[in-house]
Amino acid sequence: MSNFTESNGKTLRHTRADVLAAAMKILDELGLPDLTMRRLAATLEVQPSALYWHFANKQTLLACIADEIIDRAKGIGVGLDWKAATRAEAESLRNALLAFRDGAEVVSSTLALGLGANQAQARLTKALTGGGFDAATAETAAAAILHLILGQVWHEQQRIQADSLGVVSGTAAVTPEHAALGLPSNQAFELGIALLLEGLEQLAHTRNNLGTV
Amino acid sequence: MSNFTESNGKTLRHTRADVLAAAMKILDELGLPDLTMRRLAATLEVQPSALYWHFANKQTLLACIADEIIDRAKGIGVGLDWKAATRAEAESLRNALLAFRDGAEVVSSTLALGLGANQAQARLTKALTGGGFDAATAETAAAAILHLILGQVWHEQQRIQADSLGVVSGTAAVTPEHAALGLPSNQAFELGIALLLEGLEQLAHTRNNLGTV
Repeated sequence: MSNFTESNGKTLRHTRADVLAAAMKILDELGLPDLTMRRLAATLEVQPSALYWHFANKQTLLACIADEIIDRAKGIGVGLDWKAATRAEAESLRNALLAFRDGAEVVSSTLALGLGANQAQARLTKALTGGGFDAATAETAAAAILHLILGQVWHEQQRIQADSLGVVSGTAAVTPEHAALGLPSNQAFELGIALLLEGLEQLAHTRNNLGTV
Repeated sequence: MSNFTESNGKTLRHTRADVLAAAMKILDELGLPDLTMRRLAATLEVQPSALYWHFANKQTLLACIADEIIDRAKGIGVGLDWKAATRAEAESLRNALLAFRDGAEVVSSTLALGLGANQAQARLTKALTGGGFDAATAETAAAAILHLILGQVWHEQQRIQADSLGVVSGTAAVTPEHAALGLPSNQAFELGIALLLEGLEQLAHTRNNLGTV
């Protein structure tokens, strides 16, 4: 923890990293609705105004959390072909979102606000580029894959939350790793990614046959 | 409006349909966070307790709203092949979700709680069945398509909300029909659905060649 002094002489007892770490702890333990600047300030034993030295507003703080969540997605292995690389990125992003309570919501809202989380789509785009697609196709396909990941994890995290509150109705209350309708989450996710990649491979073949790639 | 009397003699001034319509109006005008049983009761000029005659709790009310949103998705045309039918169902579901503020969130949370909205996946499954897939494959693929739709519309609705509040950052503030990163929403959605369908068609071909379908 570093100590430095603002122009008004007030000592800042926390670094930006301290504030971010405390915010991520509140998010993970209590969830997004309970992550308020007031609660964060109380946890750090400072006035709420002290937080704005580090983060202009709550949306900026959430964007930094979103970037941190995505940064923690472990990288893909070297030497993978584009399909294996894209699948690995997609699985790694899903796991990174699942690792933090309300992770999908923090990342989706940050993307919608245009405040960050750009690395998620950039990583998928980079992996897809190995398939020889033009930049627009790779970016658009990456956006579709990202929507599938976010829709999937959103559903899973709402379900986990509901399970923890005991508010899931009888027929849907199977095991935690099962989504609504009794389908294993992994199965729908893996099939969805596999189908998207298969579709892309066919697109590449068609283009190759037409001599446009 | 029908009038009938509870056992305790209190007259119920509103039917279940009245309550549902008022709730959907609040949802569409103010959004999900402002749809409280208290506000709904005030709008209908009844005590909150009167609402529980019709809906056991707020989650049950939201589940009925989710079912109503999905019911309003216009049906697919007859005579379409399975790919066109599935694409039509997916587009129709996306439009139905977009038609109500926070529609994606209401439907996704209802699905996660296992309280309803089952028709969304059922309609996609039925459309896919025309492709000759086994029931498990059609259901799992329908779940993946539904996650793509929900992730897509969630992003779009968060963006619309952010635009209306004027909180979108400079680079992302393009036109309302554009998502973050400047990509047209329709483009990512249409490519995503097309790739999933192409992947399924290849799956069907492979199975046919192996004589397993």
